[in-house]
Amino acid sequence: MRAFTKKDFPVSKIRRFLEPGPIVLVSSAWKGKTNIMTMGWHMVMGFEPSLIGCYIWDQNHSFGMIKGSKECAINIPTFDIARQVVGIGNCSGADVDKFAKFKLTPVKGAKVGSPLVKECYANFECKVVDTGMVAKHSLFVLEVVKAQVATSPKVPRTIHYRGDGQFMVSGREVSFRTLFRPEML
Amino acid sequence: MRAFTKKDFPVSKIRRFLEPGPIVLVSSAWKGKTNIMTMGWHMVMGFEPSLIGCYIWDQNHSFGMIKGSKECAINIPTFDIARQVVGIGNCSGADVDKFAKFKLTPVKGAKVGSPLVKECYANFECKVVDTGMVAKHSLFVLEVVKAQVATSPKVPRTIHYRGDGQFMVSGREVSFRTLFRPEML
Repeated sequence: MRAFTKKDFPVSKIRRFLEPGPIVLVSSAWKGKTNIMTMGWHMVMGFEPSLIGCYIWDQNHSFGMIKGSKECAINIPTFDIARQVVGIGNCSGADVDKFAKFKLTPVKGAKVGSPLVKECYANFECKVVDTGMVAKHSLFVLEVVKAQVATSPKVPRTIHYRGDGQFMVSGREVSFRTLFRPEML
Repeated sequence: MRAFTKKDFPVSKIRRFLEPGPIVLVSSAWKGKTNIMTMGWHMVMGFEPSLIGCYIWDQNHSFGMIKGSKECAINIPTFDIARQVVGIGNCSGADVDKFAKFKLTPVKGAKVGSPLVKECYANFECKVVDTGMVAKHSLFVLEVVKAQVATSPKVPRTIHYRGDGQFMVSGREVSFRTLFRPEML
C-alpha cells in the first residue's frame, strides 16, 4: 500500500481538501476500542476557527464513540484504497476491528486520542465543539486542531460518492485565479 | 450557451448530484429583486425529507433574501459556464442584476417564488425548514420540494472549489456496487 510522507499543514487552509467534497474516513477511539467510518455528508463551516459540519447518524457505531470522546479524526483517502473505503462503509465497528480487517495503520494523534489512518493522504485531528444540532439533525460541528497533509502529490485523487455504489473520481485541476477579486482569494 | 432538456427527478435521490461536492448556484427572489450566489459550503442531511445544509454568510446579499423569503433554488452548473460561476461569486447582488450581467435565464419555479437558473444541469426548489443554526453558524437547513434534472448526460461535468481560485473538475465514474451490502444501496 502507498505510503505518504506528511507534514504539518495550516488548519485554516484544509478547505482545499474538504470543500471539493470527497468521501472521508472518520476515525475515533472510546473505552479502549477504535473505529473507522466512511462519511460523505460533511461541509466546511469556517476558516478561523477551522470548522467542519458532519452528519453522523445515531445508528452508526461511531456515533456514541464520537459523542462520548468529543473527538475524532477526518482522514482523506485516495482512489488506490477505494475498495477498503467501501468495505469500511459496509460493516459495523460493533462486529469488527476495522483497522485490523482492512489492514490500515492507526497512528497516534498529537492533540486527540483518536487514531489517525496512516494510509490516507491527509489527517485532520478534530474536537467536537458544538452538539446543538445532534439530537435534531445528527449534525456535529468539529474544529480541526491539527492537520497533516502529504507533501506529494499536490492534490489527492479523491473519491466522491453518488449513492447506489457509484463514485466520481476527482479530475483535472483548473485555475480561474485571474477572474477573482483580490479580497476573494 | 448549452441548453439542457430537463425532467422531474425524485427529490429523495438528488444526493447523486450534491454529495460529490460541486459548486452550486443559489438563486433567490425577495421584494421584487432576484439574485444568484456561488456556494461551495453545503451538505446532504437526509433523503426523506430531502434535506440540504448550507452555509450562507450574513454578509452575502442573498442572506437577507433567503431569510426573508424562506425559499431558494439550488442549481448545479457545469464546467462550460465556470467563468460565469466565478464571476457571480466575485460581485454582489447589492450592485448588479446577476441574471442580466451573466446572461443567465431565470425560469419560474413550480413550488417556490425563487427563479431557477435555466443554463444549469439541475434545479432543486427549496424551502428553508430550520433556521436554528443561522445566528450561530450561518447554517440554513433546506428541504428540496421539487427537482428537475437534465436528461443527458447521465452525470454533469461539475466544478469543485479548493479556494485560492483553484477548481477540480469532476472526473471519471466508477461503480463499486458489487462490494455493497444490499441494504446499503
